Amino acid sequence: MLSEFSLIDRFFARRAAALRPPNPAGDTLGIGDDCALLAPRAGEMLAISTDMLVEGRHFFADIDPHALGHKALAVNLSDLAAMGAQPQAFTLAFSLPKADEAWLCGFSEGLFTLAERYGCELIGGDTTGGPLNLCITVFGSVPPQTALRRDTAQPGDDIWVSGTLGDARAGLGLQRGEWSADANDIATFRQALERPEPRVALGLALRGIAHAALDLSDGLAGDLLHILERSSVGASVDVDAVPRSAALRRLPHDVQQRCTLAGGDDYELCFTAPVAARAAVEAAAHKASVPVTRIGTISALAAATDRPAIAWRNATGAPLTVTLQGFDHFHAE
Amino acid sequence: MLSEFSLIDRFFARRAAALRPPNPAGDTLGIGDDCALLAPRAGEMLAISTDMLVEGRHFFADIDPHALGHKALAVNLSDLAAMGAQPQAFTLAFSLPKADEAWLCGFSEGLFTLAERYGCELIGGDTTGGPLNLCITVFGSVPPQTALRRDTAQPGDDIWVSGTLGDARAGLGLQRGEWSADANDIATFRQALERPEPRVALGLALRGIAHAALDLSDGLAGDLLHILERSSVGASVDVDAVPRSAALRRLPHDVQQRCTLAGGDDYELCFTAPVAARAAVEAAAHKASVPVTRIGTISALAAATDRPAIAWRNATGAPLTVTLQGFDHFHAE
Repeated sequence: MLSEFSLIDRFFARRAAALRPPNPAGDTLGIGDDCALLAPRAGEMLAISTDMLVEGRHFFADIDPHALGHKALAVNLSDLAAMGAQPQAFTLAFSLPKADEAWLCGFSEGLFTLAERYGCELIGGDTTGGPLNLCITVFGSVPPQTALRRDTAQPGDDIWVSGTLGDARAGLGLQRGEWSADANDIATFRQALERPEPRVALGLALRGIAHAALDLSDGLAGDLLHILERSSVGASVDVDAVPRSAALRRLPHDVQQRCTLAGGDDYELCFTAPVAARAAVEAAAHKASVPVTRIGTISALAAATDRPAIAWRNATGAPLTVTLQGFDHFHAE
Repeated sequence: MLSEFSLIDRFFARRAAALRPPNPAGDTLGIGDDCALLAPRAGEMLAISTDMLVEGRHFFADIDPHALGHKALAVNLSDLAAMGAQPQAFTLAFSLPKADEAWLCGFSEGLFTLAERYGCELIGGDTTGGPLNLCITVFGSVPPQTALRRDTAQPGDDIWVSGTLGDARAGLGLQRGEWSADANDIATFRQALERPEPRVALGLALRGIAHAALDLSDGLAGDLLHILERSSVGASVDVDAVPRSAALRRLPHDVQQRCTLAGGDDYELCFTAPVAARAAVEAAAHKASVPVTRIGTISALAAATDRPAIAWRNATGAPLTVTLQGFDHFHAE
C-alpha cells in the first residue's frame, strides 16, 4: 500500500522522467534507485550547493505555490551562476503538512518550468510529512580553472553588480506594511521578491574574465564582505552608483539606500574584474542580456592584520557613514 | 552582525576544515564559497542520494543528539553502500527551533565521528531557524559498470541479506509500548534503532559480484519489491531463513515475523547474485566482516504482464500467507 507521500514521489518522478533526454548520456541514472549517478562534463568538476527554505523565514505561508516552486530552484541556480557553472541536475527533499493536490500542481509547475528552461534534471529526492520545509541541492559543471570563486579578488579590480538591487526587499517591506507604493510598483517589487531570475548566462559569460564573484542573497553590504574576507582585500563603494529600478527610486531616499545595500533576496551577481577587462565585462553582459554596473574598487589592506571592510562614499568620492544596523531582510540567518 | 545560525554554520565549517586532508586533491573547494567543487574518481561517476529526517516521523523529540547525528548520516551512507559507492562527501542543511549549544555539540560529534570513519567530508550546508528538520545529501564514487543497481536482478539469482533484520522495529515497538523485553535486549534493540551501521565495506566488496542491490529502510517486503518491479522478475522467500538476532528470537513469533519482514530502519543490504557466485559472496562478506544469509530465489515472471510479487514460504518450501497490512514502521511514507 502506497502512502500519499509515496504517491507524491511518483508524481515528481514521472514529471522528471518526461523531461529526460531520450538517450541520456552513458550510464547516468535518475530517480528510482538508491542513488542517482552523475558526472561533470569531461575535464570539469561538479559545483554543488544546498539551500533549505522554511515557511515564515524565507517565504510567507500564503505564497503562490507556483512562485515558491520557482524561487526554491532559482536561489539554488543563482549559486551555480555565481560559480560560472552550467546547471545539470538537482535533488529535491521536502516535508509537507498534507498532500494538497492543487498546491503540489502549482509548486511542481513553477519548479519544472524553471528546471526545463535551464536543462536541469530532477535526479532524486525525498518527500515526507511535517512542517513545510524545502531542501534543494543543485549540481552544475564547471572547469575548475575558470570557476568564479570568492577568494580571488585583486587590489585594483572594479566591483560590478548585475541588474538592479533592492526591489525584493521593497516587496517584503510592502507585505510587512513598512511602506507603500502604487499598483505598478507593487507588481515590480513582488515579481522581484517571488520570481528572482538566476543569472546563469552571465556567470557562464564571465568565466575567464571575472576575478571573483558571488550572488547577492543577504544584501550587498554583507555579501561583498564575504569576497573581501576570503580574498584579504578592502573595498570602496559608491553608494549612489548602486543600480536601482525606477520603481525603487519612487520610495524615500533612505529606504532606497537600505534596500539596495542591505536588502537581501536580490540574486544578482556581484563580481570583481581587472580594469583592463571592462570591455570584456560589457561584452559578456551584452551576450547574457543582463545590464551590469560598476559600483566601486577593490583595494589592498593597509596592513596584513587589518580587517577587510567596505568604505562607502558618494558620487563625488566623499566618505559616507552608512548605518544598516537593525535593518533585517527575509532570511536573517 | 552574525546571527546565531551564522555562528552555527561557522562551527560546522571549522570542524569540517579540521577534517580536510592537508593537501586536498586538485582544485576541490569546500565550505565558504557559493558552491563546493567535487569530482568523482577518474573514470567513475558520483552516486548521489538525499534524505530528509523530520522530528516525530523519523525520530523522537527526546533522541540523544549524538545518536541523531550518527543516524542522519548513516541512513545516507547506507544508500551509497547499496550502490557499491565509496563515500566522498556530504552536504548538511538543517532547521532548528533554537541554537542549543549542548544539543549542537552532541549532534555534531555523532555526525563527524561517523563521517571521519568513512573519510566523508562536509562540503557545504545551510542552517536556519524552524521546526527541527535535517536534510543530508551524500556523494560517493563508483564505476558505472559495477554500480549495484535495482534493475539488474536475474531469474535464478539467490536473494541475500546482510546482518539481521527486525531489531530496529523491535526497538520502536518498545518505545511505543507495543511489547516489552529485558534490559539487555532493550539495549540491543535501541542500538539497532538509533545507531545503524551502514554496510559500506560490503557494498564495495560486492561490486562485480552482486547483480542487484538496495538497502532495507522500509522493510524487506516493501523494499525487495522495488528490485522485483525495476527488474521485472518475481521472488520466492523462505520466511524462516530471514536472519534475526537472539534478542528478537525472545519476542513472540508473530512479532519476530512482522519485525523482520516489514520492520523498516534496518539499513542492511538486500542483494541478488548468481548461484555460481555463492563462494564469491561469502568471501566478500568475510572481507567486509558482515554476515550474509541466503533467504530466497529470483524467478522469471510467468507472463510479461504479471505483476512482480514475493511468494513467501516456510523452511520446507510450503507456501505461507503473510499478512503485514497495518503494520507500520517509523517512516511510513
